[in-house]
Amino acid sequence: MNTAAAVADFRSYPLISALTTVQTLADQVLVTWADGRVSPFHHQWLRDNCPCPVCVYTVTREQVLEIVDVAEDLCPAIAQVDADGCLSIDWQDGHTSRFDPGWLRAHAYDDESRAERSAGKPKSRLWNSQLKLPVFEYQAVMDDPKALLQWLLALRDIGLTQVRGVPTEPGSLTHIAKRISFIRESNFGVLFNVQSKADADSNAYTAFNLPLHSDLPTRELQPGLQFLHCLVNDADGGESIFVDGFAIADALRQEDPEAFRALCEIPVEFRNKDRHSDYRCLAPIIALDTLGQVSEIRMANFLRGPFDASVEQMPKLYRAYRRFIAMTREARFRLITRLNPGEMWCFDNRRTLHARNAFDPTSGARHFQGCYIDRDELLSRILVLQR
Amino acid sequence: MNTAAAVADFRSYPLISALTTVQTLADQVLVTWADGRVSPFHHQWLRDNCPCPVCVYTVTREQVLEIVDVAEDLCPAIAQVDADGCLSIDWQDGHTSRFDPGWLRAHAYDDESRAERSAGKPKSRLWNSQLKLPVFEYQAVMDDPKALLQWLLALRDIGLTQVRGVPTEPGSLTHIAKRISFIRESNFGVLFNVQSKADADSNAYTAFNLPLHSDLPTRELQPGLQFLHCLVNDADGGESIFVDGFAIADALRQEDPEAFRALCEIPVEFRNKDRHSDYRCLAPIIALDTLGQVSEIRMANFLRGPFDASVEQMPKLYRAYRRFIAMTREARFRLITRLNPGEMWCFDNRRTLHARNAFDPTSGARHFQGCYIDRDELLSRILVLQR
Repeated sequence: MNTAAAVADFRSYPLISALTTVQTLADQVLVTWADGRVSPFHHQWLRDNCPCPVCVYTVTREQVLEIVDVAEDLCPAIAQVDADGCLSIDWQDGHTSRFDPGWLRAHAYDDESRAERSAGKPKSRLWNSQLKLPVFEYQAVMDDPKALLQWLLALRDIGLTQVRGVPTEPGSLTHIAKRISFIRESNFGVLFNVQSKADADSNAYTAFNLPLHSDLPTRELQPGLQFLHCLVNDADGGESIFVDGFAIADALRQEDPEAFRALCEIPVEFRNKDRHSDYRCLAPIIALDTLGQVSEIRMANFLRGPFDASVEQMPKLYRAYRRFIAMTREARFRLITRLNPGEMWCFDNRRTLHARNAFDPTSGARHFQGCYIDRDELLSRILVLQR
Repeated sequence: MNTAAAVADFRSYPLISALTTVQTLADQVLVTWADGRVSPFHHQWLRDNCPCPVCVYTVTREQVLEIVDVAEDLCPAIAQVDADGCLSIDWQDGHTSRFDPGWLRAHAYDDESRAERSAGKPKSRLWNSQLKLPVFEYQAVMDDPKALLQWLLALRDIGLTQVRGVPTEPGSLTHIAKRISFIRESNFGVLFNVQSKADADSNAYTAFNLPLHSDLPTRELQPGLQFLHCLVNDADGGESIFVDGFAIADALRQEDPEAFRALCEIPVEFRNKDRHSDYRCLAPIIALDTLGQVSEIRMANFLRGPFDASVEQMPKLYRAYRRFIAMTREARFRLITRLNPGEMWCFDNRRTLHARNAFDPTSGARHFQGCYIDRDELLSRILVLQR
């Protein structure tokens, strides 16, 4: 039995520390490592994670065993470190499980091991108006997996990038988007054209100033990445403005905790409707992850419905909403630049709010193309490139 | 100024009760309706929702005004019911706003009005093994908007439907899916073929028994609707099994509140990985909406990673997980049927768990095609059809 292959999961689990002793208690096994760490593993957890080819189908590396088919009080008959340094368990029902010490350490759930894993997770790097814009070259990203990975890590951790040297033929952004994955379609199409239109179905398709916003806050899952590719930009005005929504939320949390709480707790409706669609989503403006960190900003004043909160909450919500918008207008947060043909923005649409100044459609043509890809696809591509 | 047009929002707001009196307080206006209800409206709320063509662009019906551009303490100079029965406000800064009484009543946020709206929202109708399966005819759904709407309402409220008379040419399900919207692509394609494959990248593509699960729990947003269309079903076995995950969660909440809480609170990792992708999502098995109602089940034992919870939580999580799986196996919840060529399942993938019995690939061919559409698109189509 090749334990490592069955559990490898396309990752490798190097040996951090050897297993030294194993002690069997009533509902768990206590393992001691050579570096002194002690990790408890419940019997159910160990049986559930048995990597043998009866429990895991080796072709798909997916589990076939369902833990409910094993007795809830199943105990080891023998638990020991075997000759290969693996944790070996002979269960009372006759089944045998062997655990590679590298894999076991990587999945240990004693407090220290969990804190270590948590600390090792990628963190957002907050930015302000002083950001040195991360710029990448189209051809390098297309040809070189290392350049691609660098770009994707910047998207994940900074949430705002520019790519230069993109061909200005319409549809060109598809090629670079597909370096990550398929594109997420919406009712605006697979690609959308940002141009001033007489029959606009959103203010995005006018020449108006657009205040700082995320795209499609009207959907349960806002698109993760937004691509905006400049084909023509001869019109006066229309500069791009970006702010790090996480940095603003963090500052708000420090400077006005009550306002921060209101935006985390009170859901707001966003909607977009035309003759063929009617999208509505009710959610708070700031979302937190399971660790209480800001994980998403949902904001587009022009797509917002009337606030529907209790009479008591309403003044708090307005105070908080005004404060947040006022902060998006503060110079300390704002990055303002103009995009030239062949340049493309790619940013985390759920973090980095974007705006454009009004432009004069009579002064020249302006044509951008955009598309979306979700965070899931970004993170998957990063994991594959990192293998 | 046509107040109704600017705010109409593609919905109409019939007059429920006339406005009788208006009283201006320090930060709000108190409106009394002919039926005796009293609704407070804060000055900020009213100014924010001014429907005039300066504040709302009439082509897109989207707001141009940002409330932060108005003084936080702006008050009415005059607030009254005008000759047309509208609430008319002359603001101290010279702006004028008029509110249609039907619209105003529909958006009133006094406790009674909010409770009324909340009670009027569509509710899930829970089901068990006794469900009379909602069956729809392909041709009717394709031709008749009323039949389409009936099907979509069943999907929204019951979460499990069957469509009959679907042509058995490969790709046919696309036509009926597009009655709702574009299809949500995944790494398995726009359409996916459910067949036993030697190089399976998921247990779904084997002949194994598949336990009750949702598809793509490995994504932040699990697909909302799943289509499964039977083209050929000559193999022995492979019956479809469905349970209402909301009904099970509800029963668990009653019968074992501690287990219910554990599944709502402790996040679990689901993952799916092959040579080209590596998807991972950490989320609780049961999700609740803002009102505390069950809104989503995330479950696929074969895609689950090792539990990563504290030593204290681990036994609670295993007890709850075992209990949930045991419930999915109880006869009271399970609907078991076999799909014939030309029949198609369509169900809420975030509510209705599905399974299939093992089949014998040597006994005959079996070929299903599937695709996904999100809840957003379903709800949008329903709102458009209901206009």
